[in-house]
Amino acid sequence: MNLVLLEEDELGAAGKVRLTGRRREHVLAVHRAAVGDALTVGLLGGKIGRGTITSLDPLEMEIALIDDPPPPLDVTLVLALPRPKVLNRVIAGATSLGVKRIYLINAWRVEKSYWKSPRLSEENLREQRILGLEQARDTILPSLELRRLFRPFVEEELASIARGTRAVVAHPYAASVLPSVLSGPMTLAIGPEGGFIAKEIESLQAIGFEAMTLGPRILRVETAVTAILGRM
Amino acid sequence: MNLVLLEEDELGAAGKVRLTGRRREHVLAVHRAAVGDALTVGLLGGKIGRGTITSLDPLEMEIALIDDPPPPLDVTLVLALPRPKVLNRVIAGATSLGVKRIYLINAWRVEKSYWKSPRLSEENLREQRILGLEQARDTILPSLELRRLFRPFVEEELASIARGTRAVVAHPYAASVLPSVLSGPMTLAIGPEGGFIAKEIESLQAIGFEAMTLGPRILRVETAVTAILGRM
Repeated sequence: MNLVLLEEDELGAAGKVRLTGRRREHVLAVHRAAVGDALTVGLLGGKIGRGTITSLDPLEMEIALIDDPPPPLDVTLVLALPRPKVLNRVIAGATSLGVKRIYLINAWRVEKSYWKSPRLSEENLREQRILGLEQARDTILPSLELRRLFRPFVEEELASIARGTRAVVAHPYAASVLPSVLSGPMTLAIGPEGGFIAKEIESLQAIGFEAMTLGPRILRVETAVTAILGRM
Repeated sequence: MNLVLLEEDELGAAGKVRLTGRRREHVLAVHRAAVGDALTVGLLGGKIGRGTITSLDPLEMEIALIDDPPPPLDVTLVLALPRPKVLNRVIAGATSLGVKRIYLINAWRVEKSYWKSPRLSEENLREQRILGLEQARDTILPSLELRRLFRPFVEEELASIARGTRAVVAHPYAASVLPSVLSGPMTLAIGPEGGFIAKEIESLQAIGFEAMTLGPRILRVETAVTAILGRM
């Protein structure tokens, strides 16, 4: 936690804040904070700044919010639902890199059981994004939506999501190679382990996506997401 | 497993190979291979090609090794020992991206207990690199060495490792920003969670490392490693 993320309704009068729960534990156990220490804080959806600890029990800070959060990555991430084991870190990782719009979608090679994972609960998906913001000292929560039907999403919704952006689908077997520098705005689609099937690639191409490979190496989804976002 | 990795002593006469253990299970259960199917295979340290299944019980293939493995990344990765929970995927991930030389080193903020993790066993460290090769369809095993003392490693060994390369230490608080395209040869040092301490950065600078930040976002070690390697 490189930033203590606060919510609007936690702000008291005159910039006073009381921390409870997970953030309190972290500040006491990991930061080993003492009265007078200053921590980086941020208001969810708002500015970042410093919080000076005024009391340990209860844990209270006086905060000053002065700076803008870091600039976002101008990319919409369209990701075939990854296996539950990696879902959390893909979401937190993409958030930490500055992605502000995420769609988790179905695809032929997404195992049906993945859609039943408790990790898809609203609480968990929110928590992973919060963890990504706290890691990267950001305050702007990315949107995250689930789309359980590939075709209707691609045919009815994705074209307008991608409008005005460079739309790329990462595909190990594509003929063209992803450039080593990417600049936004972009819409980036990444398939499941094993990749999108040919028909899915064609549906994406039909609405203007370019299929591009990262090279001869086939990467795990979480590696591919981070390696591509790292180029932006 | 996108490539079935074979070892020299497994090669029988006339390109015959018998698969056992983990690879056999995977080929039968995940690939659901049948006689006549062809899989991508590679010889550890050698070429890649196709293996045609000639029998299921025992599982045997006839192989033809014809192509070179994908080109390596010309980078030596010097990584403060990450926490055991992420060690495996950092090693497998860096290997899948093509890194061929890895040093896991100590640093002030590396918790001492990390050095006692069973994940540091030779078998496990080898297995993670093998998994990375199988993922990326590569055959060239990266070297991996452990250095439990920061100062002697940096002062006596690292200068000659880094000679003739661009040497960069990723440091969140550096003044200069890492370029968005990197080309080898490079030596890349990445600190522990919380970063290298000032003295460590100075030691690295004293032997020619440039301290560079990725920007205002502080990233987890595994995210930083992949995002930086993704630029190469």
